[in-house]
Amino acid sequence: MLTLKRIGIDTHRESIAYLSRSCAHYHVEEFQAFGKIEVKANGTRIPATLNIVDDDTLLGPHELGLSEEAFRLFGLPPGTIVTIDHPRAVESLDAVRAKIQGQVLSDAQYAAVIRDVAAQRYSKMEIAAFLVGCASFMTAEEVLGLTRAMAEVGQKLRWDGKTVVDKHCIGGIPGNRTSMIVVPIVMAHGLTIPKTSSRAITSPAGTADTMEVLARVDIGTDEMRAIVEEIGGCLVWGGRVNLSPADDVLITVERPLAIDTREQMVASILSKKLTAGASYLVLDIPVGPTAKVRSQADAVRLRKLFEYVGGQLGLMLDIRITDGRQPIGRGVGPVLEARDVLAVLRNDADAPADLRERALLLAGALIESDPALRGGQGIHRARALLDSGAAMQAMERIIMAQGPSGMALTPSAIMQEVLAPDDGVVGSIDCLRIARVARMAGAPAFKGAGVDLLHKCGDAVRRGEPLYRIHAGLPTDLTFAAQLAAQDNGYRLTRSSRP
Amino acid sequence: MLTLKRIGIDTHRESIAYLSRSCAHYHVEEFQAFGKIEVKANGTRIPATLNIVDDDTLLGPHELGLSEEAFRLFGLPPGTIVTIDHPRAVESLDAVRAKIQGQVLSDAQYAAVIRDVAAQRYSKMEIAAFLVGCASFMTAEEVLGLTRAMAEVGQKLRWDGKTVVDKHCIGGIPGNRTSMIVVPIVMAHGLTIPKTSSRAITSPAGTADTMEVLARVDIGTDEMRAIVEEIGGCLVWGGRVNLSPADDVLITVERPLAIDTREQMVASILSKKLTAGASYLVLDIPVGPTAKVRSQADAVRLRKLFEYVGGQLGLMLDIRITDGRQPIGRGVGPVLEARDVLAVLRNDADAPADLRERALLLAGALIESDPALRGGQGIHRARALLDSGAAMQAMERIIMAQGPSGMALTPSAIMQEVLAPDDGVVGSIDCLRIARVARMAGAPAFKGAGVDLLHKCGDAVRRGEPLYRIHAGLPTDLTFAAQLAAQDNGYRLTRSSRP
Repeated sequence: MLTLKRIGIDTHRESIAYLSRSCAHYHVEEFQAFGKIEVKANGTRIPATLNIVDDDTLLGPHELGLSEEAFRLFGLPPGTIVTIDHPRAVESLDAVRAKIQGQVLSDAQYAAVIRDVAAQRYSKMEIAAFLVGCASFMTAEEVLGLTRAMAEVGQKLRWDGKTVVDKHCIGGIPGNRTSMIVVPIVMAHGLTIPKTSSRAITSPAGTADTMEVLARVDIGTDEMRAIVEEIGGCLVWGGRVNLSPADDVLITVERPLAIDTREQMVASILSKKLTAGASYLVLDIPVGPTAKVRSQADAVRLRKLFEYVGGQLGLMLDIRITDGRQPIGRGVGPVLEARDVLAVLRNDADAPADLRERALLLAGALIESDPALRGGQGIHRARALLDSGAAMQAMERIIMAQGPSGMALTPSAIMQEVLAPDDGVVGSIDCLRIARVARMAGAPAFKGAGVDLLHKCGDAVRRGEPLYRIHAGLPTDLTFAAQLAAQDNGYRLTRSSRP
Repeated sequence: MLTLKRIGIDTHRESIAYLSRSCAHYHVEEFQAFGKIEVKANGTRIPATLNIVDDDTLLGPHELGLSEEAFRLFGLPPGTIVTIDHPRAVESLDAVRAKIQGQVLSDAQYAAVIRDVAAQRYSKMEIAAFLVGCASFMTAEEVLGLTRAMAEVGQKLRWDGKTVVDKHCIGGIPGNRTSMIVVPIVMAHGLTIPKTSSRAITSPAGTADTMEVLARVDIGTDEMRAIVEEIGGCLVWGGRVNLSPADDVLITVERPLAIDTREQMVASILSKKLTAGASYLVLDIPVGPTAKVRSQADAVRLRKLFEYVGGQLGLMLDIRITDGRQPIGRGVGPVLEARDVLAVLRNDADAPADLRERALLLAGALIESDPALRGGQGIHRARALLDSGAAMQAMERIIMAQGPSGMALTPSAIMQEVLAPDDGVVGSIDCLRIARVARMAGAPAFKGAGVDLLHKCGDAVRRGEPLYRIHAGLPTDLTFAAQLAAQDNGYRLTRSSRP
């Protein structure tokens, strides 16, 4: 009845179908009132949200258009004869409504919801309804059910026989690029650590963005496996590995809504570790007034939920609650962070001490998983491997195996300094503010953009002395970022104790 | 920097902005990650969701496109020079997050949320988050706050000095077209009743759709006021009167999500009655296994919430809990319902008795508001006005004042009968099923489409005898509707008691 047309519109993980208002075969407003339609051809069917087109040059009365995402999901060529139908009810939405009404859901209900989410049968508002319904309360058993369900739809990695370790930080601390130091150290010790990392979504850099300054990270499952079998580890982007397709969809709603519950965090992180095949996980929970976790009590509650769910899933967990009161290292943004990481790995005299110590703590915890070692020796072994240059050599192996990027380690020259408004001692640095300024400056889209912190907590500064430098991608970015810093530069100065 | 282009896409009450991926001025993926942007020109600014265009024929690198809804909101001509920005935080979303976390919100917080919803500053997923957050619990005080907030953003009608009465049914019962009988009766008594009604969204007909068979209903505030001042009442579509702009937005998410809480219902209905200037309201709450309210206990809880909120707002309420175990009248769909209404008004011998009695009950309750009448005389007065033809004359005055449509009262000839599969007595009729079959048949888009019930509860039927007729808009509609009826025709037959 209708012929398929690909519409070059990227609707950000929402499947949209386009029909002409003068469609020859259906009353389009009628279908739009129900919010969703089903597009069908040759036994294939996908749900989509309907947009009505009033422009004949865009779509004719005998055509059906699909947005890029919907076209990819549908998987049939332009010109295919398609029909539309009222959507089959997405049955798992009954479970969402039950959750909204305050019920406890079973493992089977979570499995059904997550299968449908991963298959993109939920609209964004339906995803929002699920997330908010869960936010009001979830039992620990429910978190376990959700975690299992999310792992179930991911592509599982198998490492025949090898004990695989992993490391994760819940995030939120700018510059906290410890993975790029921890992975080479534990590889140098001989452990297997196939590390996948995310790209930034709303932060100025994810580990994948920063690692990309040094090497290719856009690596699929087979190539990743080959690299890990050869050298014992990797530092790749998780986006090609498809560990958690449901999480990839949920996050497109969690981020704009700023819903970031403990329960969703635990399910998201542990489901990925489960599909990645890890059996020992060191988890970093930074605590601070502008970190994701604001108090020690909250951190302990989060730790216990991680331990309960991880334990039920057979994952050994070592959870470290760390100091998240300010950014780690100096650089915030891909190139600036890569510079700090290399300084630590090369044992440069001016390498940021906090980044080095945090990485040694976590690497030590991972090395403790080695039964051959005496208890408590992990951190000493980690320090020895870093000091000797063995970790740097491991990083070089990773870079060679993944493919060096050959990118210059030069921050952008479009630069402006943010000056201390007064004499004083740096009392605190707002992680959220620094991240926003760096993001506005163009990180991570521009590798050389970001913020370079010249002072950290405890430093005495004089009025007019620079607190940090903003490196921007474009002149307009510098304007946005400098405006933001002018409103609030994120630094709190206390009166100097000097006479 | 960018020039404005109108994109002929109707995105169903969601503002969408389109930017080329090769946009010359901004990193578009960067903006998309945050979900929303702000489009600005000459002091005007609107928020919008960003879609990225990969097709140069649709949008160039120096253009910004707006969907029909966004273009209308923005209100500036094509070619206007526009810029984009990161959206100012919608501050009321903090209240939404507080609600999600289980807090009780203040009147001021509801006012802020509803102002932003009405101004379309919320995306659909943000609206979903608000609705689901409220669904987990709301105090009666909160419902009052929400109702006040929703009334506040509506366009208030003033009827200097006149006492204005109104009538409302919470809906869900096919064929329940009592307003078109009640309004003429109470007008004939001399009361003022400026009735606005909705069009169907997911049902086979709203009162506005059915009234449109007889007269024009697409009438703005000024014309409505003139009509009511002249003849004492009207039966118009509420869409042009703008009584509840926030509700118009909320409903685009409530319907597809099928979230229909008591609290939202009370706020939606009472806020509209408040802006419409009513001081006395008769409310019909039908109860039945396939009605919106399923049990007497639920109906009483709902009644009490209506009474509390209405009372606080100074609205006199007479709430009638009625029988909602089957459709009312025979026809379901605009033309078929209009036929039933006219049969009652004309006192035809075969007019549906249930529709007549329900209308008299509600009209009598409204007439009781007249202090000149002895208590309990309302229903007798209503019956006298109907029997004498005074009500029919009032309906003729309404039709003349609004403008007769001159539409034929003929059901569609594309017809199929649904037959009894066995001998038996009609035990129950599923309201939801009958509504869906009528809707699939093309109602209300096709005025003559719908379902004509030939038997009601208690009727004895023989195998092969028709239970109802489906009248369809198009042959494809008849196929959809007949398939649905073949799966389940909505009738439950019990064994005949005859020998």
